[in-house]
Amino acid sequence: MEQQSRLETSGPGTVRPGGRTAKVRAAVLEATRDALAEEGFHALNLDRTAARAGVGKTTVYRRWGSATGLVADLLADMAEQSLPATDEGTLEADLRANAALVLAALTDPRMGPVFRAVIAAAACSEDCAAALRRFYATRLAEWAPVVERAVARGEAPAGTDATEVVRAVSAPLYYRFAVSREELDATAAARAVDVVLAGVAAGAFTRR
Amino acid sequence: MEQQSRLETSGPGTVRPGGRTAKVRAAVLEATRDALAEEGFHALNLDRTAARAGVGKTTVYRRWGSATGLVADLLADMAEQSLPATDEGTLEADLRANAALVLAALTDPRMGPVFRAVIAAAACSEDCAAALRRFYATRLAEWAPVVERAVARGEAPAGTDATEVVRAVSAPLYYRFAVSREELDATAAARAVDVVLAGVAAGAFTRR
Repeated sequence: MEQQSRLETSGPGTVRPGGRTAKVRAAVLEATRDALAEEGFHALNLDRTAARAGVGKTTVYRRWGSATGLVADLLADMAEQSLPATDEGTLEADLRANAALVLAALTDPRMGPVFRAVIAAAACSEDCAAALRRFYATRLAEWAPVVERAVARGEAPAGTDATEVVRAVSAPLYYRFAVSREELDATAAARAVDVVLAGVAAGAFTRR
Repeated sequence: MEQQSRLETSGPGTVRPGGRTAKVRAAVLEATRDALAEEGFHALNLDRTAARAGVGKTTVYRRWGSATGLVADLLADMAEQSLPATDEGTLEADLRANAALVLAALTDPRMGPVFRAVIAAAACSEDCAAALRRFYATRLAEWAPVVERAVARGEAPAGTDATEVVRAVSAPLYYRFAVSREELDATAAARAVDVVLAGVAAGAFTRR
């Protein structure tokens, strides 16, 4: 018997044929995100996630199997849901938009702790590590065209490694966030972009 | 009754007055490092660490209190033991030496998993996060003089933020290691330094 929940309370008539599976997944992933934000990966638990989502335990065990299964599916969903890259017309504007999005995600009161938790989960589980790798590969591939367009416009040297440029914008922000555990602010984001633009102009990102 | 161990087998006559506390700490931290390298933070356990170190459980509970206490003290010890910065005569040579050390630490079969585990521990515990912050603050302060000397030699613009330059060398390596979970190699280390040198030359690291 399923508990009263965000799934069950979505109201009559909202479960269309074929929509139930997607609704169960959405409820379970939302419960997973909430649990990670509030308590971190080490406290993630299938029974409590099922209760929180208002989904039967059997369903959750059968479809996700373990806490790492929940995290891996959450990361797959985050990759699917992520916003497309900007196309502002200049490399600088696009990279500033990218840095602003990374900064906003990491400093968001709900998503910041989720990112911290999935990074921790990846340190504890190879399945989570693979899911995290796929998430960032998707994000990097999404943003690489901003650099490719800059090369086509002559704003960046031919042979510039687009993915490496996008990585380099994120890296100083994630380093402070997850490694050195320092303050993260607009100054850090602005400097990350300035340094990358100098590197692009100097040809430091050409493929080798 | 303490078990036969690396502490007890160090031989008669090696425990000098005043040396016992330091030996107990060394044995416990070595056992902590081994446990983190082999199983990660989520499996770190005081009882098994005490047994592994050959130190009484009561001592370990009294002095370290919890798994996070062990990690925090290990990080304090790693900061104390860390190698001093180089002084090669040029900013480029010093930053390449720094990048090589970071790369060697993160790809070391024993220390790599330890770094991954302490980063995960910091995501689960504020005490570990504070200890990790202190560890990197120590490392950054140790290496900042290589940039200050470069400014004094006229190799870098006046007002260059020395700590920020050192952070920027590490960041892309840690990003691959702990966040995007990608391969880490000499090419990534070389590019990190090239990009930072371009940023220094362009004034992107001057204080703001």
